[in-house]
Amino acid sequence: MKNSHILLNHGSGGKLSRKLVSDIFFKYFDNDMLNSGTDSAIVEVPPELLAFTTDSFVVDPLFFPGWDIGKLAVCGTVNDLAVSGAEPKYLSTGFIIEEGFPLNDLEKIVKSMAETANSCNVKIVTGDTKVVNRGQCDKLFINTSGIGLLNKKYKNISSGIDIKPGDKIIVNGTIADHGISVMAARNELNVSADVISDCAPLNQMISEVLGNGSIKFMRDATRGGLATVLAELKEGRNWGLEIYESKIKIRENVRGMCEFFGFDPLYIANEGKVVIVVDQNSAKEILKTIKKNKFGKDASIIGEVVESNPGKTILKTKIGGRRMIDMLSGDQLPRIC
Amino acid sequence: MKNSHILLNHGSGGKLSRKLVSDIFFKYFDNDMLNSGTDSAIVEVPPELLAFTTDSFVVDPLFFPGWDIGKLAVCGTVNDLAVSGAEPKYLSTGFIIEEGFPLNDLEKIVKSMAETANSCNVKIVTGDTKVVNRGQCDKLFINTSGIGLLNKKYKNISSGIDIKPGDKIIVNGTIADHGISVMAARNELNVSADVISDCAPLNQMISEVLGNGSIKFMRDATRGGLATVLAELKEGRNWGLEIYESKIKIRENVRGMCEFFGFDPLYIANEGKVVIVVDQNSAKEILKTIKKNKFGKDASIIGEVVESNPGKTILKTKIGGRRMIDMLSGDQLPRIC
Repeated sequence: MKNSHILLNHGSGGKLSRKLVSDIFFKYFDNDMLNSGTDSAIVEVPPELLAFTTDSFVVDPLFFPGWDIGKLAVCGTVNDLAVSGAEPKYLSTGFIIEEGFPLNDLEKIVKSMAETANSCNVKIVTGDTKVVNRGQCDKLFINTSGIGLLNKKYKNISSGIDIKPGDKIIVNGTIADHGISVMAARNELNVSADVISDCAPLNQMISEVLGNGSIKFMRDATRGGLATVLAELKEGRNWGLEIYESKIKIRENVRGMCEFFGFDPLYIANEGKVVIVVDQNSAKEILKTIKKNKFGKDASIIGEVVESNPGKTILKTKIGGRRMIDMLSGDQLPRIC
Repeated sequence: MKNSHILLNHGSGGKLSRKLVSDIFFKYFDNDMLNSGTDSAIVEVPPELLAFTTDSFVVDPLFFPGWDIGKLAVCGTVNDLAVSGAEPKYLSTGFIIEEGFPLNDLEKIVKSMAETANSCNVKIVTGDTKVVNRGQCDKLFINTSGIGLLNKKYKNISSGIDIKPGDKIIVNGTIADHGISVMAARNELNVSADVISDCAPLNQMISEVLGNGSIKFMRDATRGGLATVLAELKEGRNWGLEIYESKIKIRENVRGMCEFFGFDPLYIANEGKVVIVVDQNSAKEILKTIKKNKFGKDASIIGEVVESNPGKTILKTKIGGRRMIDMLSGDQLPRIC
């Protein structure tokens, strides 16, 4: 137990804390800024705007085929920066760990964070670890905060104020994979379904289309799913959104699980899907570029911005009906991210 | 219950999440960057170095006369930035909340964070809230991350590489107040002692002495206490530290509680104390300036950098003995910050 699990003293700020930091965190998050071991990382930035974001991750379970909480914690913050039009550069990480947590599992998570950070060219430059008594948190929670460099010409992307009727709405693939994969992994839903989360860092894919100059808005569709992004986007605008249900891609097994459990896939969380609003004249070109990226193979234009129904999002269903999309008011499964 | 306590759906990303954000977070953390409601805050920085830091706060209890977890979470990150020589500017905040947590208490904490942030001229510009099921975290945890602007001329302060023998070591007041106040507040130590935490934002006080140009190093003495800062500081250096026990100030009631419970006050956490190494020629002037600040009234020169005993910190005790100060290896109380 003493050497294989987290002890309260790993969080005391003393020798054992130091050992944990050098044995695990410095080992994987290897960079000059972190290794200086000072309270704050010091980073150099050119005279640009900065994007700054934070997210805590409490997903249960911690591990699942294809991803884990560490990968999720890096992707989530990288994506939040990337959808604002920024180039993600530096991450912080704060761990809250339950006494008794296996050190092997912690190392797996930290390794996964480091690999994911490397794969998307960001550096984890500062961190903190707290340990709480057994029973005072469930295994392990991670906060990541991030800084990205934002070129002034992209500063309107996160608010979407340049959107106008005629613009097209692109989503980079199938929806609801992440939420359903978490549900499938939990014992409480005792189903074996071959559902893999879409958890992925999207900054590279986004950078490939950002230079085109015709992107008006981006938002990653995480908690609350695609519907929540579409519902938030139209609020208080003098235009509306029209979405074609037939163009929204959902894997067959994901659709099946949603039907079985009574979930609406539009509201189920994704961790590698972004909603992109683009000028209509560039929509096809941007779609083509996105489809070449491994995280955009199944991308499609799912709808457009319209003058009719201002401040509303209308879903045109496959059978020809019209349904209003609004923010989620019912229950969702907790701890999916 | 429905309207007075945190529900799982407050963390779902849907309508209830939105209501929580506008009713509580936007209400108190009122600034343009946060209010835009986008995933990342966008901030403008001049072409300087940035300091970037993160800290999670899991202190138990959440409230105590004179402070609460919210004030602590802002002060902790502001101080981490300030001791690196940076001017703290922007904070993020990530809440992990247990289902059933009273909304009134959440509002008190958020209000306290806002007041503390205002008092030290920093803005809380981005945030995130997760809710976990009852029993899966103990009440509420807060992460704050922060960005500060670092003038290039102060870039060596966090590493202390300009320190040389003869430099003086200043601490801005009494030690061990915070850790002992937390212990006193816990039911498990059923003692009524009039001990108030020193929790305070130190950026203003630090900015008053930074311009002098003779500060070589700063570090706030939090987890692990004064001894841990002094032990870390001397590691691998070709000089040593000599500390005069008689110059370290400890309140009588704090000393009494330490003796009663067998704690060494040198290792007890502070939340408003900074260790400052300064050039010997400026030490008195800097001490004078610090003493004028409300958070430095009891400041003193507690020791100096010496050529003898390189890589070691020696405490000269009141009765004439010499004791080596090293990092904590024994047990400390968990969740003091």
